Amino acid sequence: MFSKWKEQSFQENDRKVIDQIRSLGLDMIMAAQSGHPGIVLGAAPIIYTLYKNHLQIDPNNPDWMARDRFILSAGHGSALLYATLFMAGYPLTLDDLKQFRHLHSKTPGHPELGITPGVDMSTGPLGQGIATAVGMAIGERYLNHYSEEKKFPNLLDHYTYVLCGDGDLMEGVSYEATSLAGTLRLNKLIVLYDSNHVSLDGDTKMTFTENVRERFTALGWNVISDVDGEDCNDIDHAISKAKTSSLPSIIIVSTTIGKYSKYQGTSKVHGAPLEEEDLQNVKKQLEVRDIPFTVSQEAIDFFQTSIQERMSPILKEWYTKYEKLEGTLQQELTALNERHIEVSLKDFALEIPENHMESTRVSSGKILNHIASSTPFFLGGSADLSSSTKTYLKENGDFSSSNPGGRNIWYGVREHAMAAISNGLALMGLLPFASTFLVFSDYLKPAIRMSALMNLRTLYIFTHDSITVGQDGPTHQPVEQLVALRAIPNLEVFRPADGNEVLGCYKAILEKKEGPSALILSRNDVEIMDSTKANEVSKGAYIVRKEEKYLQGILIATGEEVALALSVSEKLSAEGIDTRVVSMPSIERFLAQPNEYQAEILPTTIKTVVLEAGSSYSWYRFVYNEKYLVNVNEFGLSGTKDEVSKAFQIDFNSVFTKIEKLFR
Amino acid sequence: MFSKWKEQSFQENDRKVIDQIRSLGLDMIMAAQSGHPGIVLGAAPIIYTLYKNHLQIDPNNPDWMARDRFILSAGHGSALLYATLFMAGYPLTLDDLKQFRHLHSKTPGHPELGITPGVDMSTGPLGQGIATAVGMAIGERYLNHYSEEKKFPNLLDHYTYVLCGDGDLMEGVSYEATSLAGTLRLNKLIVLYDSNHVSLDGDTKMTFTENVRERFTALGWNVISDVDGEDCNDIDHAISKAKTSSLPSIIIVSTTIGKYSKYQGTSKVHGAPLEEEDLQNVKKQLEVRDIPFTVSQEAIDFFQTSIQERMSPILKEWYTKYEKLEGTLQQELTALNERHIEVSLKDFALEIPENHMESTRVSSGKILNHIASSTPFFLGGSADLSSSTKTYLKENGDFSSSNPGGRNIWYGVREHAMAAISNGLALMGLLPFASTFLVFSDYLKPAIRMSALMNLRTLYIFTHDSITVGQDGPTHQPVEQLVALRAIPNLEVFRPADGNEVLGCYKAILEKKEGPSALILSRNDVEIMDSTKANEVSKGAYIVRKEEKYLQGILIATGEEVALALSVSEKLSAEGIDTRVVSMPSIERFLAQPNEYQAEILPTTIKTVVLEAGSSYSWYRFVYNEKYLVNVNEFGLSGTKDEVSKAFQIDFNSVFTKIEKLFR
Repeated sequence: MFSKWKEQSFQENDRKVIDQIRSLGLDMIMAAQSGHPGIVLGAAPIIYTLYKNHLQIDPNNPDWMARDRFILSAGHGSALLYATLFMAGYPLTLDDLKQFRHLHSKTPGHPELGITPGVDMSTGPLGQGIATAVGMAIGERYLNHYSEEKKFPNLLDHYTYVLCGDGDLMEGVSYEATSLAGTLRLNKLIVLYDSNHVSLDGDTKMTFTENVRERFTALGWNVISDVDGEDCNDIDHAISKAKTSSLPSIIIVSTTIGKYSKYQGTSKVHGAPLEEEDLQNVKKQLEVRDIPFTVSQEAIDFFQTSIQERMSPILKEWYTKYEKLEGTLQQELTALNERHIEVSLKDFALEIPENHMESTRVSSGKILNHIASSTPFFLGGSADLSSSTKTYLKENGDFSSSNPGGRNIWYGVREHAMAAISNGLALMGLLPFASTFLVFSDYLKPAIRMSALMNLRTLYIFTHDSITVGQDGPTHQPVEQLVALRAIPNLEVFRPADGNEVLGCYKAILEKKEGPSALILSRNDVEIMDSTKANEVSKGAYIVRKEEKYLQGILIATGEEVALALSVSEKLSAEGIDTRVVSMPSIERFLAQPNEYQAEILPTTIKTVVLEAGSSYSWYRFVYNEKYLVNVNEFGLSGTKDEVSKAFQIDFNSVFTKIEKLFR
Repeated sequence: MFSKWKEQSFQENDRKVIDQIRSLGLDMIMAAQSGHPGIVLGAAPIIYTLYKNHLQIDPNNPDWMARDRFILSAGHGSALLYATLFMAGYPLTLDDLKQFRHLHSKTPGHPELGITPGVDMSTGPLGQGIATAVGMAIGERYLNHYSEEKKFPNLLDHYTYVLCGDGDLMEGVSYEATSLAGTLRLNKLIVLYDSNHVSLDGDTKMTFTENVRERFTALGWNVISDVDGEDCNDIDHAISKAKTSSLPSIIIVSTTIGKYSKYQGTSKVHGAPLEEEDLQNVKKQLEVRDIPFTVSQEAIDFFQTSIQERMSPILKEWYTKYEKLEGTLQQELTALNERHIEVSLKDFALEIPENHMESTRVSSGKILNHIASSTPFFLGGSADLSSSTKTYLKENGDFSSSNPGGRNIWYGVREHAMAAISNGLALMGLLPFASTFLVFSDYLKPAIRMSALMNLRTLYIFTHDSITVGQDGPTHQPVEQLVALRAIPNLEVFRPADGNEVLGCYKAILEKKEGPSALILSRNDVEIMDSTKANEVSKGAYIVRKEEKYLQGILIATGEEVALALSVSEKLSAEGIDTRVVSMPSIERFLAQPNEYQAEILPTTIKTVVLEAGSSYSWYRFVYNEKYLVNVNEFGLSGTKDEVSKAFQIDFNSVFTKIEKLFR
C-alpha cells in the first residue's frame, strides 16, 4: 500500500495526511462535545508542512534537547496539535485522542506542558505563546553562544516556531514581545500567522484592521505575506525563506477558518463542535470514511517516514557530536534540558555596610551579582527600572544581537512581555529573573500565572514594596499586590526583612527544583539586624525576638515592618508587656512546615498581631479578628515616607499605641 | 511692562513663558527633592504651545463640560503640568507648587483626578493615559452624535490630546488601544509624542528601535513627524494639521530630555533633582533669576491673555447655545459632566424561564439590555467574547466610524485596552461595561486599579467564574482572581447566586454615585431560587435558608455554590443537623453594614463554613480555621464539570461529608 502512496504526487500525499489530521481533530471535538473545529480545518496544512519538512524533532524522544521548539500560541487549536503529534509518531495513542478534554487524559482542553509529549509550553491565554517564544529564541541564542564559547558549537541551536492567530496579534503582550524581538534581531524565531480574518465574536473588520505586514516591518521583522494556506508548497517555500533571514520572520498565511464546513469563513465554526450533518459533509469532501477515529495507516507511514528520512542523518550527526562531549558537559546539558540547573549559595557571605543600613533591593543586587558569577545560566533584566530595582549584573554585559553572551536583558517598559519572555528562558532551562516595582506586578500577572501553571523557575524581583515609597503617590504604592501574588497557586512569595533574610530567600529559591518565586523588596534602607537569620528563611517564619519570660503576645511582621515590630516589642517590654516577634518572609513556606513547628512559633492561644503595609486579606488566618491587623487597605497618598506612614498609622507611635491596648 | 512684551516677536515671548515653566518645574522638584526634571526641560514647549494656541479650556472653570481633554500619559511629568496650569491661570497658587509631592497638597507626585484643577485623569503607570484617552475620544464621538440627534449639535464636541513618551509607546496597552483607535478612525484624538530616545535606564536604542512612523501608519493613523520640539511654530503647525485629519493623529516631536542640563540627552536627568550647580547653570541659560519660585508677571499675563483672547469668543458662543437648552437637558449635561447619571431598575422584573434554570451570565444579559433601553448613556463591550459573556446589546447597534451612535464596542482580543478605554468612557460621564472571562481579569488588572483609584463607575462583567467551566482546563479556570479583585480598594465585587441576585447586583451598582464594580457570573445554568432576594443584595449578605429551630452551623456561599449550600443544608436537616445558609454576593457590602446586622446574620459563636470555588484568602476572616473552608487553592484541570467538581471535592457528596463531620 505504502509503495502505491509514494507513487502519487507528493502534493496528493500531503493532502491526504492533512485531511486525516483534520478528520481526527473533528472526531476528538465531536467525542468531547467541546473544542474548536475552525482552526483544525483552517490551519492543518500549516502545521503539517512544518512538521513534515522543517521542524527538527525526534518523535521517539520528544524532549530531545536540540529540537526545534513549536508553540501553538492559539492554544484553542489543541485538537489540531494532538492529531498532528499522533500522526507524526509521538507517544500518543488513538485512545489518548478519544479522551480529549477529559480528566487526567494526555489531551487536555488546551496544551499543557508536561502532560502531552511534544508540547513545549502550556498555551491558551492569547498572546502568551508568541511572547514566550521570544524568550525561547533569546535563550537559544544565549545557549548557542555559550556552546560556541565552550567549543562545542551547534549542539544547542534550534529554531523556534509559533503558530498564532488574529487574537494573539491583538494582545498587547504580543506587540511588546515582537517589538523587542525586532530590536534583538532574533532571526531564528519564525511566526506562522493563521490569518483568517475571523475571531470568536465575528469578522475582524470590526476590530483588527491594521496592516500586519507594515506593523511587523516597522518592528524590524522580515515579513513574508500572501502565502496560500491550502498550498503546502507555498507554505514550505515561505518557511525555507524565513530560515535564511537575518531578522525574525512572520509568515502571513491566508486561511479559511472551518474550511469545508458549511459555516467556513465565519465565527460560527470557531468554538463549538460541528453539527452531525456538517461533519459528515466535511468528511465527504475530505474523502475520509465517516467512522470516528479511523486513520489511514498509509497516511501515518508517509508522514512518519518523511520525518524520519529527513531527521535521521541530522540526529545521527548530533548524537555523534554529543557523545564526544565530556561527561560533565553532558550532565550540564541534561540538567539544562530538564530545567534542573543547580546553583549553591552555601559559601557566600553578604558584605554588610558599616552602619548596617541597606535597602533590601541593594542587598539583593549584591547577591544577584554573586549568583551570576557562579553560574553561566543566570540572566535577566528589568522593565526599564534596573537602576531602581538594583538588578543590573555588573560584570555580565548587555544582551543584544551583537553580544549574544550578554546577560542583562533590556526589556524596555514592557512588563508583561518581560514575564512571558522570562518564562521562555526558563523553558530553555535557564534561571531567569525579571524585575520592576511591586505595584506594576499587575502588568505581569497573566504571565506570572503561566510561570506558576508550568511550574517554571522564573524569579520575579519586585521592589518599592509598600506605600512607604512615598512621594510618587498612589499609582506607585502597592496595596493589594502582595495578596494577589500569594493567592497564585505554585508561586512562592518572599518578603525579607533585611539583607540576611534576602540571602536566605535566594538560598531557598535556588534550592527549589521547580516553581516560580517572587521576591518583594524595599526601596528604603532597613537595618541589617543581628536577630535575622538567612538559614531560617526556608521555614517561612521564625522567632527574631523571643519573649523574656511569660509570653503575652506575638507580633508577626514581614519586610520593612520587622524592624518596626522589634522596636515596638522592645518598648512593650519596657512597659511590662512580654512579647515575641516572628518574622514571616514566606507564608507559603511556613504553612508547609510540620504542625509542631507552626505551633511552636505561633501558639494558638496567644494574642497575635500582624504588621504588614499591605492588604489584610493576606493575614486573617493568623489573628482573632481585624482589630489585630496593622495593614493598609486603602490606596496610598503622595508624601514623604514619614508623612505617609503617619497618615496610614503605620508609624512607630501609632502602632505602639494600638498594640499596647490590645495586649494589656 | 506687558506692552513691551507684546512688542517683542511672539517667538521670543513664547520662549520666555516656556522658560518660566521650566524654571518653576525645576524649583518644585528641588523643593521636594524628588521628581523628574528631564521631561520638564524637554517637553515644556509642547505643552505650552498646546495650552496657548489650541486647547479649548476655561482656566476659571477647569471642569467646563465642553473642554478639550488633555492627558499627561507620561504622568511623571507632573511638575511640568502643574507649572503650566499655574501659569495658564488655573486655581493653583505658588504655595501649591511649593508643596509639590507633600501630603494632601494639590500637587501630588503624579497627576491625580479630583486633586488638581485641570487634571483630567490620574496618570503614572505608563500606557494608561494614552489608552484611556482613546476611551475619551470614543465617548466624545458618541456624545457628540447624541447631541446631534437631540438637535443641540456641537455642545459636547472636543479634542482629546495626549502627551506621551517612549515608555507609553512600549507598553502593550498603548498598542492595543491605538490599534482600535485606528480601526475606529478617531480623528479627534491627537497624540503628542515626546520623542527623546531616552528612558529611565538609558538610551532607547537598547530597547525601542521600531519605526514609530511606520507603526502608526500600519495602525491607520495620520502621522506627522520631524517636528522640532524647540520650535513652537513647528509644533503649532503640526497640531493645526492634525486637527484637520480624518484619522487619529500622532505628532512625533523630537526633543532633548533634560534640555540645558549638563546631563541633557541622557537618562541621568530623567528621575532625580538636578545638582545645585547644574540647576544654576540651567537657570542662567534660561535667563531666569536664580531665586526659587520667582515668576515673571509679564510671562503670566502674556500666557493668560493669549488663552483668554482665543477662548472668550468660543466660550461666549458656547454659553449662548447652552443657555438656550431646556432645563432638563442642562441638568442631564451637568449630570454627565459630574459623572452622576442616574438610572433606575425599580420597575424591572426579570423574565424567568419555565424550568427556572439559567446561567447568571444569561440573566445578566437580559438586564443589561433593559438598562440600555432606559438610558442612552449605558454602553460597552467585550474582548471578543460577547457571545460567551452575553453582553451584547441587541437593540443598540455596533459602534464604528460610520455608526457613532452604536453602543456595542468591539474591543477585539484586547482586554487591557478595553478596561482603560472604559475608564475613558466613565471619565466622559458615561456608564461603561467591559466583559471577558474571570480568569482573564488578570490582563485588565492595571486598568481596573485605575478605575478604583479614580473612583470611576466602570462596570466589569467577568463570566466563567470558577473551575466549573470545565473542559477548557486550567488556563481558563480562575482560582485566585476573586481575592485579587476583592483586595483592590474602592472596587466592589459581586458574585450573585442566581438571576434574582444578578438583578439585585445591578440595582446596587446603579445606585452607587461613584466607584467601580465587578460582577462575577457563572457559565453554567443555576436554579433561580425562591429564597434569593434581589433587594437583599445591597446588604452584601443575607439568609437564604433559616435554621429550623436551634442553629448548629452556618454555611456561607457565593455564586454557583449557594445552590450547593442549600442542598447540603437540607440534607443536614434530614440528618438532624440544623443549619442556616447565608448568601454573600458581596463581602465588601456586608462588612460595611452596621455591626448589629452582621452579628444577626453571622453570630460569632456558631460554627461557620464557607463554600466558594476560589482561593481561601478571601474567607479566613469568617471561620475558625482552614478546616471550615470549602475552596479551591490549586490550579484546575481539564475535564467535564462533574469530573472537575469531584476532583476538587466541591461536588455535593464531598461537601456534604466534610460539613457533616464538622457540624456533628
